[in-house]
Amino acid sequence: MSAARTLAAYVGAFVDELAKNGLSHAVISPGSRSTPLALALEAHPKLRVWMHVDERSAGFFALGLAKATGKPAALLCTSGTAAANYFPAVVEAKLARVPLVVLTADRPHELRDVGAPQAIDQLGLYGTHVKWFSEMAIPEASEQLLRYVRTAAGRAIATASGGPMGPIHLNFPFREPLLLDLSSPDWYRQGERADAYVRVMEGNRGIGKREVERLAAACNGKRGLIVCGPQDDSDLPTAIAELADVTGFPVLADPLSGLRRPGQGEKILDSYDAFLRTSEAKTALVPEVVLRFGAMPVSKTLTQYLSTYSDVLQVVVDPYGGWRDPVLTAAEMVYADPVTLAQALTATVRARASKEWGHTWQRLDEMARAAMVREAERQELSEGRVISELVDLLPEHSLLFVGNSMPVRDLDSFLIRPQKLIRTMANRGANGIDGVISTALGASFSFERTALVIGDLSFYHDLNGLLAAKLHQLNLTIIVVNNDGGGIFSFLPQAEGSSSASFERLFGTPLGLDYEPAVRMYGGRFTRVKSWNDFREAVGGSLEDGGLHVVEVPTVRSVNVAMHRERWNHVSVDVEQYLQKEAPTWK
Amino acid sequence: MSAARTLAAYVGAFVDELAKNGLSHAVISPGSRSTPLALALEAHPKLRVWMHVDERSAGFFALGLAKATGKPAALLCTSGTAAANYFPAVVEAKLARVPLVVLTADRPHELRDVGAPQAIDQLGLYGTHVKWFSEMAIPEASEQLLRYVRTAAGRAIATASGGPMGPIHLNFPFREPLLLDLSSPDWYRQGERADAYVRVMEGNRGIGKREVERLAAACNGKRGLIVCGPQDDSDLPTAIAELADVTGFPVLADPLSGLRRPGQGEKILDSYDAFLRTSEAKTALVPEVVLRFGAMPVSKTLTQYLSTYSDVLQVVVDPYGGWRDPVLTAAEMVYADPVTLAQALTATVRARASKEWGHTWQRLDEMARAAMVREAERQELSEGRVISELVDLLPEHSLLFVGNSMPVRDLDSFLIRPQKLIRTMANRGANGIDGVISTALGASFSFERTALVIGDLSFYHDLNGLLAAKLHQLNLTIIVVNNDGGGIFSFLPQAEGSSSASFERLFGTPLGLDYEPAVRMYGGRFTRVKSWNDFREAVGGSLEDGGLHVVEVPTVRSVNVAMHRERWNHVSVDVEQYLQKEAPTWK
Repeated sequence: MSAARTLAAYVGAFVDELAKNGLSHAVISPGSRSTPLALALEAHPKLRVWMHVDERSAGFFALGLAKATGKPAALLCTSGTAAANYFPAVVEAKLARVPLVVLTADRPHELRDVGAPQAIDQLGLYGTHVKWFSEMAIPEASEQLLRYVRTAAGRAIATASGGPMGPIHLNFPFREPLLLDLSSPDWYRQGERADAYVRVMEGNRGIGKREVERLAAACNGKRGLIVCGPQDDSDLPTAIAELADVTGFPVLADPLSGLRRPGQGEKILDSYDAFLRTSEAKTALVPEVVLRFGAMPVSKTLTQYLSTYSDVLQVVVDPYGGWRDPVLTAAEMVYADPVTLAQALTATVRARASKEWGHTWQRLDEMARAAMVREAERQELSEGRVISELVDLLPEHSLLFVGNSMPVRDLDSFLIRPQKLIRTMANRGANGIDGVISTALGASFSFERTALVIGDLSFYHDLNGLLAAKLHQLNLTIIVVNNDGGGIFSFLPQAEGSSSASFERLFGTPLGLDYEPAVRMYGGRFTRVKSWNDFREAVGGSLEDGGLHVVEVPTVRSVNVAMHRERWNHVSVDVEQYLQKEAPTWK
Repeated sequence: MSAARTLAAYVGAFVDELAKNGLSHAVISPGSRSTPLALALEAHPKLRVWMHVDERSAGFFALGLAKATGKPAALLCTSGTAAANYFPAVVEAKLARVPLVVLTADRPHELRDVGAPQAIDQLGLYGTHVKWFSEMAIPEASEQLLRYVRTAAGRAIATASGGPMGPIHLNFPFREPLLLDLSSPDWYRQGERADAYVRVMEGNRGIGKREVERLAAACNGKRGLIVCGPQDDSDLPTAIAELADVTGFPVLADPLSGLRRPGQGEKILDSYDAFLRTSEAKTALVPEVVLRFGAMPVSKTLTQYLSTYSDVLQVVVDPYGGWRDPVLTAAEMVYADPVTLAQALTATVRARASKEWGHTWQRLDEMARAAMVREAERQELSEGRVISELVDLLPEHSLLFVGNSMPVRDLDSFLIRPQKLIRTMANRGANGIDGVISTALGASFSFERTALVIGDLSFYHDLNGLLAAKLHQLNLTIIVVNNDGGGIFSFLPQAEGSSSASFERLFGTPLGLDYEPAVRMYGGRFTRVKSWNDFREAVGGSLEDGGLHVVEVPTVRSVNVAMHRERWNHVSVDVEQYLQKEAPTWK
C-alpha cells in the first residue's frame, strides 16, 4: 500500500468511527501538520466542517455547537501554539460539562524537544482540564492499528459524552509526506463494522428505596426549599414541578435551569435574588430542608442565604459525583440521576409543607417582581430591562445567550414569568468573559433565531469570533450593553475602597472604542439605540432579516449602579412592610 | 494589624522585591480577585503598569517587553479562564527563552473544586511550559511570611532570567476582603533589606583548555562552516566574525542572529537560502566540520543541507544545556557560553581553511544575492521586496519585527548587506502566527521606531492586540502583506496534492476582510498601497508621524509563488553555470 493510501486508511477509519458514534461537526483551523485529519474530516460524507482561523474562537465555537446539540463537536488544529489557544474553551468545557473532542496534530517523536519549528510539548497539554488524554500511534494500516484507531475514536466520543460530559484530547503525530490518497471509494471504510465499532452503553445512577424513604421522611411536612441551578436535562423541569406540588416546597429557579417557562406555576420563583437581599426576609425565611439540583445558581444573594442556614439539612444532587457546593453547607451529597430521584421522592413524600410557608415565599416573589418591573419601566435604556424587552421580541423557541458579569445577573433579575419558551444559555463553567461571541455563534446553528446580550469588554475580548458569522452566514443578534468598561466592578468594594483614578484605571478600564466599523468589517449591521423604541425597531428588524446584527445600548456605569440599588431599595421597603404586617408564625 | 494592612504588607513586600530585583513592567488585565496585587503593582513607585483587557494579547505584549529589554516582565490576571488565555505566550516564552513572571490570582482553598464562580484548577496550569510553578501561601504579615514572600519574588526573577531564560508561574490565593490599606508610607517596605533580599549570581559555563584544543584541532585547515541561528547575545556577532577570520570558515548568518549588519565582512553570508536550493551547490559544497551557534536557522534549505552531511562533524553550542538539533546530525553538544567558546577557539586555531573553500561560498553568495535583487527590482509589489524597501526607510537602530510563515522567510532572503544597524525580531520559539502584533507592540516601547511585517491571517489573529497601541500611545508601523489567506501553504505539496476546492477551503482560507475600519477603530491610520512609490510615501510618512499606522500591500498568492520560484530558478541557472566552469577541486 502506498504511504498516501496507508495514511488515508488510518485517518479515514478514525473519522469514520467518530461519525458512526454520532459526531456531526468538526471545527478546523488551517495548518500543515494537521493535513491528513483535515482532508479526511472534509471528505467524509457524514461530517460538516467549519473553518475558523483563530483557534481560541474556534474552540468556543465548537463549545457552542456542542452545548446546543448536547453532542460532542470536534476541534482540529496544527501543532504548536495553535493548540494552546484552545485552552480557555477546554477549561470552560470541563467545568460546564460540555463534550468536546480536541484533536491536535503533532510532529513525530524524532522532531520533538529538539528545536524543530512549531514543535511544543503537547503531551498532556491541557493537564487536569480534560477527561482523557491519549497520545496516538504513528499511522499504519495494519489490521491491529485499524482496530486501535477505531476503538480510540469510539472511546473518545464515549468519554466526552459520558457523564459528566467534557473535553477529551487526542494528540496525533504525523510524519511527512502528509498527503492522502482518497481515490478509493472505501478509503474511510477499512476495518469498519456495520454499526459503531464498539457500542457504549452507560447506566443511570438510581438510589435504593430505603434511601429515598429516608429523604422523603426528612421532607414530610417540613419548611423545605428546592433550589435548581443551571442544568440541561429537559426532563428535569417537569419532574421538579411535580415534586414541588407534592412537597409544597417553593422552587428557587435559576434563569439557566429551564424552569422559567410559560405556565411555570406559582411555586416556581424567579425574583428571589431581589427579596433575599433584605435581612428581614433572610431572617424570616428559616428553612428546615433544602434540596439542591443543578450547578450553583447565578444569584449571589441566594448563595449568601444558603450559607446563613448551614446547619439546616441541605441535600445536593449530582448525577455524576461532582462536588458543586461552594457554600460548603451540604450535609448530604446524592449521586443519582436527578429526574429519577425527583420522581421517586414525588411518589414517596406524604405530607406537604404548611400553606403559610409556601404562601410567604410566593407573596415575596410577586412583590419583588412587581417592584422590579415597575422600576425598570420607569427607566430609559437601563441595563436590566434589555432582557425583558428582548424576551418580548424573540420568537418562541429562540435561544437567548448571555455573557458573564452583568448580563447573566440581569437575566436572573428580568427573565420573569416568560410568556414563551425561550432557551437560555451562558458559559457558567468558569464564568469567563472570553469566547462568548463564538459560543453563541456555535450554538446559534441549532436555533432559528439567537440573541446574545453581552457587555462591551466581553464583546471586545472575542471580536475575532465574529468572523464565523461572516464565513458561515449565521444568524445572530448581539445586544452590546456598552458602558465603556467593566461595569460589574462598580458593585464591588473596590469601587469605594480605592482612589477613583486607580479604580478607573485598574477596574473601570474604559476602552473608548466605537465598534461600528469592526462589525461592518465582518459583514454585520450595527445600530446604536437611544430609546426603547429604537431598540425594538432594531432588534425586531434584525430578527426578521437574519444574519449578523449588533445593537448597541449605551449606558453609564454609575447610573446603572444607582438604578440597581434603587430597585433593590424599593423591593426592600415593600418586603419589610409586608413582613412586619404579616410576620410568619413558624418561629 | 487590620486585614487591609496585613494584605498590603504582604503583597507590598512581594512587588517591592520584584522591583528590587530589576522588574520594571507589569501588564495587568482587569479582574476582582487580583485586586491586592493590581493595587500594589500600580502603587509601587518603581513599577510601570500597562493595562490590557484581552489576556492573550496581554501575554504577548509582556513577551515583547521582555524580549526587547532582555529583562523579565510581569503579567497579572484574575482567576479562571483569564489565566488560560496566557498559555500561548507562555509556550512561546519557554521555547524562545524569554523571561516572564506570570502572576495569577486564585480563590482560596475552600472555594476550589466546589463549583465556585471563576474557580478553575490553576495549580500547575501551564504544565511543562514554565520553568517554575509555585502555589503561594494565604497572605499573612508575620516576619516569617514576609521573608517567604520576598524570597519567592527574588527567586521568581532569578529563575525567569537565569539561563535559559523563560516563564515562571506563581499562583496567589486571596480571601475576601480584597482591599489594601496603603495609607502608611512604608506599606511596601516591610521586611526589606537595603538591596535585593537575596542577591543571585549565576556563573558562566566555560569549557576546559584541553577540550578547546581538541575542537580547534578538528577545525585546523578543514573545510569548515559556522552556522549562526537566532540568538540575542550582542557580543556574539563580533566573536563569531573573529573566529571566521582565523578559521577561514564562511558564516551562514540567520537574519535573527544579529550578524547581518553594516560592515559585516565578506565571510558573513546571507543568501545561502537561495543557492543551497540547487543540487549542484549542495553536492559541491562538502564540509568537513560545522560549528553551530544559536537556535535553528529559519532557512529550511540550510536545514536540508545540514542533514545531507550527517556524517560530518557537526558541533552544536548551547550555553544552557538545550538540545537544538532537529536535523539530528550533531556529533557534539557543547554546553558552554558561546562568546567564551568562540574567543577560546579564535585564540587556539592555527590553520585556516583553503582559500578556494571560502571563495566558492562567497562567490555563490554574491551571485545569489545579485540575482535575487535583480529579480525583486523588476517586480511590482512583490512580498519579498517589502523587506529591502523597509530597511531603506527605517532609521538606524530601529526594530524590524517579522511575523511567522512568509515574512520571516522573506526577511531571510532580503535582509542582505544592510547599510544600517536594524534590530530584527520574531517569535521563533514555537513559530506561531498568534500574538505577533502584541509582541511587536510590547517590544516597540524600547525603540524609537518599530516596523512589523505580517501576513493577513496573522494580522487577523491578533487584531485585539492593536488596543495597546491606542491605550498606551505606542509607535508602530505595520506592513500587512495581504494575500487574503494562508500564502505559505501554496509552497507545500498540499497545493498540488488536494483538489483545488478543498485546498482553498482548508488551507487558502480567504477571509475577504477589509481591515481599514478595524484599524481606524483603534485610532490607527490605514493606507493600501498600489506601487513602491505609494509604499515609500506611506511608510516614510508613518515613521515621521509616529503612532499606529497600517500599510497594506495587496498581493496574490499564486503570483507570489511564481515570483519566488522564478527568482530561485534564476539563482539556480547562475549557480550551475558557475560551478560547471569553476568546479571546486577539493573533491
